[in-house]
Amino acid sequence: MNANTSFHIPTSIQWQDNRLSILNQQELPHKEEYLDLFEIEDVFEAILTLKVRGAPAIGIAGAFGLAMAALKYETDELGVFFSQLERDKEYLLSSRPTAVNLSWALERLYHLALQSSSVNEAKTELLHEAIKIQAEDEDMCRKIGENALTLLDPSHPVMTICNAGSIATAKYGTALAPFHIAMEKGKQFKVFACETRPLLQGARLTVWELLKSGVDATLITDSMAAYTIQEKNIKAIIVGADRIARNGDTANKIGTFGLALLAQAFQIPFYVAAPSSTFDLSIETGKEIPIEERKAEEITHFSGIPSAPADARVFNPAFDVTPGHLITAIITENGILKPDYKDSISQLFSELQ
Amino acid sequence: MNANTSFHIPTSIQWQDNRLSILNQQELPHKEEYLDLFEIEDVFEAILTLKVRGAPAIGIAGAFGLAMAALKYETDELGVFFSQLERDKEYLLSSRPTAVNLSWALERLYHLALQSSSVNEAKTELLHEAIKIQAEDEDMCRKIGENALTLLDPSHPVMTICNAGSIATAKYGTALAPFHIAMEKGKQFKVFACETRPLLQGARLTVWELLKSGVDATLITDSMAAYTIQEKNIKAIIVGADRIARNGDTANKIGTFGLALLAQAFQIPFYVAAPSSTFDLSIETGKEIPIEERKAEEITHFSGIPSAPADARVFNPAFDVTPGHLITAIITENGILKPDYKDSISQLFSELQ
Repeated sequence: MNANTSFHIPTSIQWQDNRLSILNQQELPHKEEYLDLFEIEDVFEAILTLKVRGAPAIGIAGAFGLAMAALKYETDELGVFFSQLERDKEYLLSSRPTAVNLSWALERLYHLALQSSSVNEAKTELLHEAIKIQAEDEDMCRKIGENALTLLDPSHPVMTICNAGSIATAKYGTALAPFHIAMEKGKQFKVFACETRPLLQGARLTVWELLKSGVDATLITDSMAAYTIQEKNIKAIIVGADRIARNGDTANKIGTFGLALLAQAFQIPFYVAAPSSTFDLSIETGKEIPIEERKAEEITHFSGIPSAPADARVFNPAFDVTPGHLITAIITENGILKPDYKDSISQLFSELQ
Repeated sequence: MNANTSFHIPTSIQWQDNRLSILNQQELPHKEEYLDLFEIEDVFEAILTLKVRGAPAIGIAGAFGLAMAALKYETDELGVFFSQLERDKEYLLSSRPTAVNLSWALERLYHLALQSSSVNEAKTELLHEAIKIQAEDEDMCRKIGENALTLLDPSHPVMTICNAGSIATAKYGTALAPFHIAMEKGKQFKVFACETRPLLQGARLTVWELLKSGVDATLITDSMAAYTIQEKNIKAIIVGADRIARNGDTANKIGTFGLALLAQAFQIPFYVAAPSSTFDLSIETGKEIPIEERKAEEITHFSGIPSAPADARVFNPAFDVTPGHLITAIITENGILKPDYKDSISQLFSELQ
């Protein structure tokens, strides 16, 4: 345990004095830069250029961006106000059209505002709703972290991949939440972070975030996972999720599937930490999840410098799908799901309804 | 099959007209540069600065370096000749004092020369012996490749890691030998090369070498191995070896152990290709193999550009040990060994004696 009070859990989005302050994640780990955004165009640009990243963080930034824009509308006419709001909602959504959380947050604000009976009421409601979305996300992540802590022992080393972290959410993150919350309770996990090729989110973001928080983090290449599990006595692996099918099959950053197979080989638990919103009940299995293939340059170049022959053929899937049978438990804000996932997932959602 | 005759199997060392021509592997994959070395100091520098790499290739370059130096000695006195030869042997050895193949090749030349009865005879013997070492290595690699081809089907995709390749040996390599030899026979393998973090030998060297040879090579990050095995229908994994214990435990580039566990999970064969000289009969198991840990900058930087926080703690083992029980077969120039390796290895060496 490190009692050094200079440690704090980093967050990436702060609303203060009618402006949005964001951590510029494009500059990490070289520079810890916070940008003050005053205009909706600034928020659009920050989302477009990946200064804000992580599905929940993008949704929160978008919500504040829309509220910030609406606060400046000079009309008293509700009809004019709503049409300006709709235009700005569509504008922000176009910054990352495929981001489900962004669409969800913007529509939530827009439809709430439509119920207002005055422009002033609508402005107040919009800002409150953005703050509420952020608070709900933080609360959800805290619950995921607390639930994860019932499965993880801070005295046992844990491995993770990518950045399912505090800076990708309102606070705490999902897979990284138990480590941050343990620090708040004075307990220091030893975490091995896979660098997460090709874009190095583990090296650039997770190690930075965990060091900020005071967690005992060690960086390894993805290829070192097996040897590290054996030599460093790793007792569990915990990862985030991009999408979970009805049977528990989980799409997440490329490399996750391999870690799940290693967990099986070493007979250690493999945990997925994700909010309930990650479940896609419209798909039965992971086979229905399309896997995006990204451009070769992500692998053949580093910071513009070539690291492979110019004519190298490349296979660059961004995600893989871990079959549910390799997942020991799925940790949500609403509790911990265990196999058989078909049953436990459908039970969770019938209770939620 | 690609019948394009512009393809050829690249080699890294050529002796011609009293000079040594080497492929500058430090410049790969950006530039295909061949350096003519005329002086022993050039050979020393090429080995020291890793322009020549791969244990067999270093031994061959050292042998030619010593012969090239001796050809220029101006004495007719055998005693003077031998003392100059000993001095130059020690000088070359100091370029990479831990390289077993370098020491082995230099001592082999030196002790052969000591049996000569004239300076001219010694000079001729030295050059012939260097040529012989190169020819033996090529022959050995060809046999390994031929033996590997009895286990691998060119119509089935194969995965490899690091560069156990032609340019690391006299020709053909070890793990890559079957792919090159199949090309000579007009059969084109589909090979998936793991990039091999942190030093990217797979991306920089293996993909370059296989493309030169006409092999259908595809580059992936190490983290993509599991998903690629599943999606691209990989039917076997083949790797080289740095050291093999009496029970078959095999030290090789970090990441090899993880691939062996994936092979087990997917129930595909996992092959080690290595010359008999790789067996270290002085050790019973892999537990006795010390694993070198290298500097953090290999992981935290790329071409001098930081890719992780400056204060990141790093675990950077250069090798891992794959337990013999995960290895389907060990392919040598003297035949294919199968489990139980304790028996098959000791049988091989009693036959060789």
